[in-house]
Amino acid sequence: MKNNISTKVLPGFMELLPADQISFNKMKSTIQKTYESFGFVAIDTPIIEKSEILFTKAGGETEKQIYRLSKGETELALRFDLTVPLARYVSEHFNNLSFPFKRYHIGKVYRGERPQKGRYREFYQCDIDIIGKDKLSLINDAEILAVIYDVFLNLKLPKFKIRISNRKLISGLLKSFNLENKAVDVMRIIDKFEKMGQEFVKKSLVNLGLSEDAVEKIISFIGINGSNHDVINSLERLKINNDVFTQGLSELKSVIEYVEFFSLPIDYYGIDLSIARGLDYYTGTVYETILVDYSEVGSICSGGRYDNLADSYTKHRLPGVGISIGLTRLFSQLKDLQLLNIKESTPAKVIIIPFDNKAMVNALKLGKTLREKQIATEIYFEESKFKNKLSYANKLGIKFVILIGEDEIEGNYFTIKDMDTGKQNQLNLEKLLITIKN
Amino acid sequence: MKNNISTKVLPGFMELLPADQISFNKMKSTIQKTYESFGFVAIDTPIIEKSEILFTKAGGETEKQIYRLSKGETELALRFDLTVPLARYVSEHFNNLSFPFKRYHIGKVYRGERPQKGRYREFYQCDIDIIGKDKLSLINDAEILAVIYDVFLNLKLPKFKIRISNRKLISGLLKSFNLENKAVDVMRIIDKFEKMGQEFVKKSLVNLGLSEDAVEKIISFIGINGSNHDVINSLERLKINNDVFTQGLSELKSVIEYVEFFSLPIDYYGIDLSIARGLDYYTGTVYETILVDYSEVGSICSGGRYDNLADSYTKHRLPGVGISIGLTRLFSQLKDLQLLNIKESTPAKVIIIPFDNKAMVNALKLGKTLREKQIATEIYFEESKFKNKLSYANKLGIKFVILIGEDEIEGNYFTIKDMDTGKQNQLNLEKLLITIKN
Repeated sequence: MKNNISTKVLPGFMELLPADQISFNKMKSTIQKTYESFGFVAIDTPIIEKSEILFTKAGGETEKQIYRLSKGETELALRFDLTVPLARYVSEHFNNLSFPFKRYHIGKVYRGERPQKGRYREFYQCDIDIIGKDKLSLINDAEILAVIYDVFLNLKLPKFKIRISNRKLISGLLKSFNLENKAVDVMRIIDKFEKMGQEFVKKSLVNLGLSEDAVEKIISFIGINGSNHDVINSLERLKINNDVFTQGLSELKSVIEYVEFFSLPIDYYGIDLSIARGLDYYTGTVYETILVDYSEVGSICSGGRYDNLADSYTKHRLPGVGISIGLTRLFSQLKDLQLLNIKESTPAKVIIIPFDNKAMVNALKLGKTLREKQIATEIYFEESKFKNKLSYANKLGIKFVILIGEDEIEGNYFTIKDMDTGKQNQLNLEKLLITIKN
Repeated sequence: MKNNISTKVLPGFMELLPADQISFNKMKSTIQKTYESFGFVAIDTPIIEKSEILFTKAGGETEKQIYRLSKGETELALRFDLTVPLARYVSEHFNNLSFPFKRYHIGKVYRGERPQKGRYREFYQCDIDIIGKDKLSLINDAEILAVIYDVFLNLKLPKFKIRISNRKLISGLLKSFNLENKAVDVMRIIDKFEKMGQEFVKKSLVNLGLSEDAVEKIISFIGINGSNHDVINSLERLKINNDVFTQGLSELKSVIEYVEFFSLPIDYYGIDLSIARGLDYYTGTVYETILVDYSEVGSICSGGRYDNLADSYTKHRLPGVGISIGLTRLFSQLKDLQLLNIKESTPAKVIIIPFDNKAMVNALKLGKTLREKQIATEIYFEESKFKNKLSYANKLGIKFVILIGEDEIEGNYFTIKDMDTGKQNQLNLEKLLITIKN
């Protein structure tokens, strides 16, 4: 016996006990079903990619976080998101795909970040993207919003709000001061507005070399609020006439108009001009989603519109729009806030406990019948004291325990115990099935 | 534009187009649901493990195939199976698990094998194991067989047969010639019996230094056939009286007896003494599963019983029994044999095509209604010629196309086209729902 190897999971990796895992998997399955209900199709790409594929897209921090593999001659690494694999997939299979290509991808990605609370080195992303060939209607930007709404409604999360903006508005505003070349930096700073506050943003913009007047105008732009129509009116009153701003405003107006067609409840979404997203590659609509009463959680679903998905890999122009849910982090945050209903440690709805080996045949027969009726059923096979058998059922959190002994066999009935209420009944097969099915 | 990076998937990695992916995911989901119907619970462990965890279990060939990561100080590698992670998981979480612990795990594993047809470097394994604390009833060995039967029945595979044996029988036979120390080598050779034939096995056994008499006895042992009861009678007539053989025979008899309780059809399983499995760690029951009319496919589901899951990591004795389905390989073989029914490239059952933007509101409203009735629905948003819209629906393999134009809006009906039959009907909402639901 060696028994000297630490079996602790690596820091920054999430590993769940069965009850938590069931809860996690239910969330994953709800997201998947909602994505599919809108016609998004699953893809599943290798976790390993050629390094050159990953490094064309990864910049700065991300590049340092990539896990590289040492095997053979080809330089390999683990994917750090699902967008780069999508770009590669669409480029490679371009001729075999139908456009608009609506795909979802739920899979693990890897980032060797410094481990800290709520940050994981291996985590699930749940992405959808709609990729057009040459062009893609703005109705898709509105549909993405409808998908986010359905996902979080189906997940039964507490009150959430989807915030929407358009990056061309800030770009246009900056263009009006001849500061268009600073757009990426300014958006990175604005992205920190909620987390760091107005003073931080002001200071950072000044440090970037912006004039006081420009800073004031940006701060007052971010601060525009009210109903969606109020915000649009305020934006129109700014009288910024350059092409970028005008196009951004027109896009935002269209998307808001289309969202109304989707008949989402008005308090679940709204324009928020402080949304900018840190990533460079968004070029139009951007989204974030927050839990209204738990702002500390941050954005639970983010994304946006981009002009061209895969310019490093293909000459086709592929505009797209998409979002990503970081499920591992979201799960861990909801668990910490005790917002999850975690109970069963098994998918079985029923456990059958035969009193002894003589009752085993009856137990196996009933198990088969229940499974045929789509009722997941476990049978307790081990020889053990009756107390231990019940305690096993109890620990798993199974709702129904069915007992079979001599009396039950002779009397042609089953004893069923509801572990929630503690009530025990003697039922024939037909009534047993009805009780379990309800 | 760089556009000079090859986007070809790495050799030995499977990447599927949407229609194939849907077919693959259906198989995965069927396996998952069947496992759950018996009360197996999902676990999900990191794909990355500490190297020392993996290297305690990997021997010879496997060790050379492990992908190592270069990042930070800890030596890391990608898992090469789901059994080692299970052993680590059970050791780490021992005090928080209920035993018998019935877990399933469907996940990707990595082996840097030389790429060749049907061999993958990244592939899905779909495992179940039942782990006992100190002891585990033989009924579990029979239940595993019942699970395999249900899985392949639910997958609607062509006629299959589960072969079962017990490694103690060969060990006991060898002990009767005082050759017990050669048991592992002999079993590796016997494992090649079906693939390489009797002459190869004979020659290999002679090369191993076995006497002609021993070789003859082993060959005649492997050749024992007939019904399960015939085989058991033949084994009893061998009059081998050492403890190992006696225990093996008694275990096999018990398992066969219990399988009969599960009422599996008799032609779907049978004792086959040529089954030995190459892996060292099986100590009792072993399983293989073949497609009766496609023997070239080899075993599509294998496994067995082991005395102790995790002796490198814990002092607890953890006997277990389990099986594994190599889904990636199985899918690729079934596809090559044209045994898969691959059709749709989308989960949507319906696509709504509005004639113009005026009909969009009606299309969105209907989409919402259909989704509320659990009918996955896509809406065609792009401006395009009508012909192109229909051709998009056709390429995706969607069954129902619903058309909405001016006439439909005014007449308060929908035009629905069944793409399989080509028939077109004008229906109100109620009748539309009935048509789609059927």
